Amino acid sequence: MMMDFESFFKNELDGLHQEGRYRVFADLARHRGEFPRATRHTAEGTQEVTVWCSNDYLGMGQSPVVTEAMKRAIDECGAGAGGTRNISGTNHYHVLLERELADLHGKEAALLFTSGYVSNWAALGTLCSKIPGIIVFSDAGNHASMIEGIRHSKCERVIFKHNSVADLEAKLAAADPRAPKIIAFESVYSMDGDIAPIKEFCDLADKYGAMTYLDEVHAVGMYGPRGGGIAEREGLMHRLTVIEGTLGKAFGVMGGYITGSTALCDFVRSFASGFIFTTALPPALAAGALASIRHLKESQVERFAHQERVRRLRSLLDQRGIPHMVNPSHIVPVMVGDAAKCKWISDLLLDNFGVYVQPINYPTVPKKTERLRITPTPLHSDADIDHLVGALHSLWSRCALARAVA
Amino acid sequence: MMMDFESFFKNELDGLHQEGRYRVFADLARHRGEFPRATRHTAEGTQEVTVWCSNDYLGMGQSPVVTEAMKRAIDECGAGAGGTRNISGTNHYHVLLERELADLHGKEAALLFTSGYVSNWAALGTLCSKIPGIIVFSDAGNHASMIEGIRHSKCERVIFKHNSVADLEAKLAAADPRAPKIIAFESVYSMDGDIAPIKEFCDLADKYGAMTYLDEVHAVGMYGPRGGGIAEREGLMHRLTVIEGTLGKAFGVMGGYITGSTALCDFVRSFASGFIFTTALPPALAAGALASIRHLKESQVERFAHQERVRRLRSLLDQRGIPHMVNPSHIVPVMVGDAAKCKWISDLLLDNFGVYVQPINYPTVPKKTERLRITPTPLHSDADIDHLVGALHSLWSRCALARAVA
Repeated sequence: MMMDFESFFKNELDGLHQEGRYRVFADLARHRGEFPRATRHTAEGTQEVTVWCSNDYLGMGQSPVVTEAMKRAIDECGAGAGGTRNISGTNHYHVLLERELADLHGKEAALLFTSGYVSNWAALGTLCSKIPGIIVFSDAGNHASMIEGIRHSKCERVIFKHNSVADLEAKLAAADPRAPKIIAFESVYSMDGDIAPIKEFCDLADKYGAMTYLDEVHAVGMYGPRGGGIAEREGLMHRLTVIEGTLGKAFGVMGGYITGSTALCDFVRSFASGFIFTTALPPALAAGALASIRHLKESQVERFAHQERVRRLRSLLDQRGIPHMVNPSHIVPVMVGDAAKCKWISDLLLDNFGVYVQPINYPTVPKKTERLRITPTPLHSDADIDHLVGALHSLWSRCALARAVA
Repeated sequence: MMMDFESFFKNELDGLHQEGRYRVFADLARHRGEFPRATRHTAEGTQEVTVWCSNDYLGMGQSPVVTEAMKRAIDECGAGAGGTRNISGTNHYHVLLERELADLHGKEAALLFTSGYVSNWAALGTLCSKIPGIIVFSDAGNHASMIEGIRHSKCERVIFKHNSVADLEAKLAAADPRAPKIIAFESVYSMDGDIAPIKEFCDLADKYGAMTYLDEVHAVGMYGPRGGGIAEREGLMHRLTVIEGTLGKAFGVMGGYITGSTALCDFVRSFASGFIFTTALPPALAAGALASIRHLKESQVERFAHQERVRRLRSLLDQRGIPHMVNPSHIVPVMVGDAAKCKWISDLLLDNFGVYVQPINYPTVPKKTERLRITPTPLHSDADIDHLVGALHSLWSRCALARAVA
């Protein structure tokens, strides 16, 4: 009896539908210069919406600083890189961008990847598989890309409680003192918006002779006087072995990178399959990211406006008793705690109020913590915030959802 | 005794230097409208070179059809996508491009990834890990991205001899007849330029109830009346379960994709970590690829010119007795068979003749088969070809390299 693959796929998809986990992508056309406005395409036609869940946190993806740099690079160099970094694909913009990133994080060197996902997967996968006997200590809240890289390496791994200094120390102390060690964690966590105790983790790394690997994808561009991330803001960049980041969120383009010592970056460059055997980023993406980073190294306007918008949204949510998770970052999780309700609220926000916030359900977050993950940007106006909070207030009343207690 | 990570990295890099495997990237600035010309940046200054090893096989990365479409999309939508496909990152260009790709390969659906590497890794990794008990039959010559995807899945894998129908059949016959099976292979192999017996593999798939997964990254855009690849040229597209391709070679941009049934693409979309948890391609890349595919569906000019350039180069190499591997594709491997000589010839070509061909050494190819992998494009002139062959002739004489026997 041969397997009926089509039926298998359909059954698995039916399972997702039944669990309320099947994802329908919103088909959007963003309008440059009018972000966060976008046109949503549906089977019935089009609808104008306001995007409230973008990771283009500062709106740099819409900034002429970035878009004009990209268009100039297209005029200079063309569309794609035309090869892997080794085989004709290294463009001068890649070289300039790697220098700029090394400088941003105060490191000797940087290495570009096609995405943040690939940078974590390839860098952790290579470090953990190539250093004999290494043990990786991985925060329980780490992103899928870090988990897959560690899994890929097949090295010994120890998961420590999310952001727990005590648990990390207990686990470091219990490990073979002679084994090489790496501590892998993030600064700002995407879904809860909480921030790691970076200094304490670095102290433990010193004490136990471990390397540190910090993912700053939700922080670069937004924190620190030059946008170097939380580690820059806290004066800790020099204490981290590797700082990893993305060009696809606050910098507004696409791509990922690591920064570290020259030898470390050269090592990953020389051994990482996911770096070696893939076409390089288009020169125009490198040029756009370069312009974005240079701009945000100098300008504080976007960062200040961003933080102010976040404070204003939180304050208005509090006034209306809409429950949101308190955290020290720019991510505003409005808690619903039920998958079906979360999807229902999101659908009503979109259909009745033109407000687009994707519902975040299991497995991205644990069950019973389903939420709307709201990301204000400097380009959301007072009126936008009023409209969003008014819409939530109306739905909270209609849906008999729990209010936050003042 | 704590580990000295820096010394470890440096020692490993020293090993690469000693084996002649350390890679130095050529730092190039391509000039739009003047491809295959580029400016090479070195520590000493700059040099004008002709690129002879690009995977921008048809020069579409330099075509105004593509570059103008990208610039228009930047003006419309901005720089990056701003999120994952699920969380605000799906742009209308992604939707249009997926429809175009499905049509190109005669399939119900398509799914975009950030690169060809990620498409193979994520699609094979998901199919092979999620279908219970599946056995993957993988061609011994498969690309690193396919190997990593299969390895990631931890499923049972059987490697069959490269392009061998007999060996594949023997291995299929020896496997549990009740186990689900997938045959994974490429059409054009990158380094030897040979082509798989697709029809015979499909016959075996039918006989043994296996799915087929065909990587056409070195064929899409270049073969078949609409650029659908070798399977299109041979009238076999409907017999393949999955056709995978890239937007980063003949289409001249960046990104990867799979095409297949609606259920299969939806299944991979719903379960592949490397698809779900990564920022979507910038709208401008999708728009550029869309324009490139649409152009190459209609126009035969680029394909005819490409094949003619390949024939002309081969003919001139034969006249001068420069040994190159005979194959039925567009890839011209000039065989050297020694790592040090290969690097030395490549350096002399670059420094003395302004000809850039990256040397291909182990582990990309087996030892003793080191080569110059030359990729003519429609934009290489007669004079370019004469210059390249003259330079090779001169070096072959100086270096006392073996001549091909006529």
